[in-house]
Amino acid sequence: MGVPQNLCTSCGKPLFARYDLKEAARTLTPQSLTTRGKSLWRYREVLPVRKDEDIVTLGEGWTPMLHVPRLGAKLGMERLYIKDESQNPTQSFKARGMTGAVSMAKQYGLKKLAVPSAGNAAGALAAYAARAGIEAHIFMPADTPQANIIECRETGAHVTLINGLITDCGMEVAKRKAAEGWFDVSTLKEPFRVEGKKTLGYELAEQLDWKLPDAVLYPTGGGTGLIGMWKAFDEMQQMGWIGSERPRLYTIQASGCAPIVRAFEEGKRFADEFPNAATKASGLRVPKAIGDFLMLDALRASGGGVVAVPDEEMIQAVRELGSAEGIFAAPEGAACYAALKHLRAQNVIRADEQAVIFNTGAGVKYLECFHD
Amino acid sequence: MGVPQNLCTSCGKPLFARYDLKEAARTLTPQSLTTRGKSLWRYREVLPVRKDEDIVTLGEGWTPMLHVPRLGAKLGMERLYIKDESQNPTQSFKARGMTGAVSMAKQYGLKKLAVPSAGNAAGALAAYAARAGIEAHIFMPADTPQANIIECRETGAHVTLINGLITDCGMEVAKRKAAEGWFDVSTLKEPFRVEGKKTLGYELAEQLDWKLPDAVLYPTGGGTGLIGMWKAFDEMQQMGWIGSERPRLYTIQASGCAPIVRAFEEGKRFADEFPNAATKASGLRVPKAIGDFLMLDALRASGGGVVAVPDEEMIQAVRELGSAEGIFAAPEGAACYAALKHLRAQNVIRADEQAVIFNTGAGVKYLECFHD
Repeated sequence: MGVPQNLCTSCGKPLFARYDLKEAARTLTPQSLTTRGKSLWRYREVLPVRKDEDIVTLGEGWTPMLHVPRLGAKLGMERLYIKDESQNPTQSFKARGMTGAVSMAKQYGLKKLAVPSAGNAAGALAAYAARAGIEAHIFMPADTPQANIIECRETGAHVTLINGLITDCGMEVAKRKAAEGWFDVSTLKEPFRVEGKKTLGYELAEQLDWKLPDAVLYPTGGGTGLIGMWKAFDEMQQMGWIGSERPRLYTIQASGCAPIVRAFEEGKRFADEFPNAATKASGLRVPKAIGDFLMLDALRASGGGVVAVPDEEMIQAVRELGSAEGIFAAPEGAACYAALKHLRAQNVIRADEQAVIFNTGAGVKYLECFHD
Repeated sequence: MGVPQNLCTSCGKPLFARYDLKEAARTLTPQSLTTRGKSLWRYREVLPVRKDEDIVTLGEGWTPMLHVPRLGAKLGMERLYIKDESQNPTQSFKARGMTGAVSMAKQYGLKKLAVPSAGNAAGALAAYAARAGIEAHIFMPADTPQANIIECRETGAHVTLINGLITDCGMEVAKRKAAEGWFDVSTLKEPFRVEGKKTLGYELAEQLDWKLPDAVLYPTGGGTGLIGMWKAFDEMQQMGWIGSERPRLYTIQASGCAPIVRAFEEGKRFADEFPNAATKASGLRVPKAIGDFLMLDALRASGGGVVAVPDEEMIQAVRELGSAEGIFAAPEGAACYAALKHLRAQNVIRADEQAVIFNTGAGVKYLECFHD
């Protein structure tokens, strides 16, 4: 952790932080957690950042794991849960990654960060950069939800709108960053967003009394949360907190942008760029992800699978989920419920199994999807 | 707590729940709290609801108390804090009141609830009612932010828009409730929203290590949070957790709707209805509050005061606060920062004092305030 790094300079693939887990497990124990604070920094020993004073926090993490019996009953399930990530700072799971990346940027003394974003990552970077006194340069598609554009401006970021997709925004950052002196915090192109995101896996275990569920439904754009959880399971096993059991992981994407679904079904390890990507679920509008092989490996190793959901189904699922349980989910989160209906119809997930849906953000940030 | 009640049937004033605090203090202690869950129901013994299974929860409360040194430095203050209520379900402090009111409605077996709302209370009632399987009938001014209207619909509520103010909405509920079989959960016209809101006071003490701050800046519409905190301080004193010291309470309102500010300055115990109420801070657009005398009594007893803030100042304060600390505050929350500038300029709050601003909701729910 001596100097800032992006991808591996020899293979061009993502870098991962490693910890002395034997040492970590001396102080970080399930018992020790019962009296720790409620942010994701409760898992301090397995997170980066040398000195506590470099931690840039807005109180992220430790979001509720809500039992949703009314929604479950629609599918004959008694043990359905929603992990409600909308209760993070900036109302999405992206806060987890950015507290990691921006804290490390502060440790390194970086002054200018840049990111391409499909929406919520932008809002999170803007917020954490402001909190740290660091400049944020943000590149988003011009048709990103207004909420994301406005939240970035109101937290002092420099916002550039691009006529294109997140991949085009990424190219713009790549092209300009050297001249501008920006450090690129694109997900998995820097090693610490995934460290923040992996706490989803720690919380999944802790909030279910250290017994992982049978199935996890995860809306997948860049896939950092999925990859991070998979890493967390491994770390927890090494610390002796869980055994070798894993939940079956299901990647949920939009029919209009489903590169991982397609690659999984075609038996490929790397995903082709998805052509003409289009979906109202802005977080799923990621036609090409650098961590594709990491996701595909994890999905297969877990015995899980994939589902692509049409936009109409996911928007309808927002209201079904909201009316049943009072959670106004992001379209990405609701897509998981829509997908679960298919998986139940095929009995791929059984009625007696325990399943967890990740609602990655607040529906209220996607007003464009709901105007009459 | 045997039957549902609204106002006192003899005097027409609000009713308050009372507890056997000696009994409560046997199990509820500062020490006991260190291992309790992170929702406001951690204060179980001083909250209503007989049986745990009637609690209707989405994980509300225990929001972060954030030290904001960068914002404080602008005013020469080292000990400025923001209590960030945007991290509640439905992104506002209204979740606290509604978990109380809807849980009690469930206990009573009520099937239909109605509320007039300036915005965020509507979203919260819709969510908690859906979670409980209870009908929600919501009356809002037609020019309420779109986010509030949409969140209610997407969580299954029946929404009626009224050309008027929250007071007009309240009259509509009053007129129709008997025929429709609705129970009115207008704030302070039922006794349990204030019980949920009072947990703000418990958290204020607990998060500051049981030493209340010198000053509290609270954006005041109906004033339930202020009244609830004042009640909480009294309960905590009776349980021996704090002494007789109290923070100075400052009510912050919008210049376009400042009935409590006006009454305070005129030395009145009851506030006249504010004529032609108008402000972009929808939560402050409350021209007449039934708890006016309770607020005014508390403000005076605490040695605090009042500030009215013009809309331009509060909207500018949103960006100042957001850029300094990464919190995209609701206009109501940012109004407190704008007010603090005035109070510092007059040295009413001193540089060495500890002050807490309540950011009551998420700025992202007020997009209309920020369009270019």
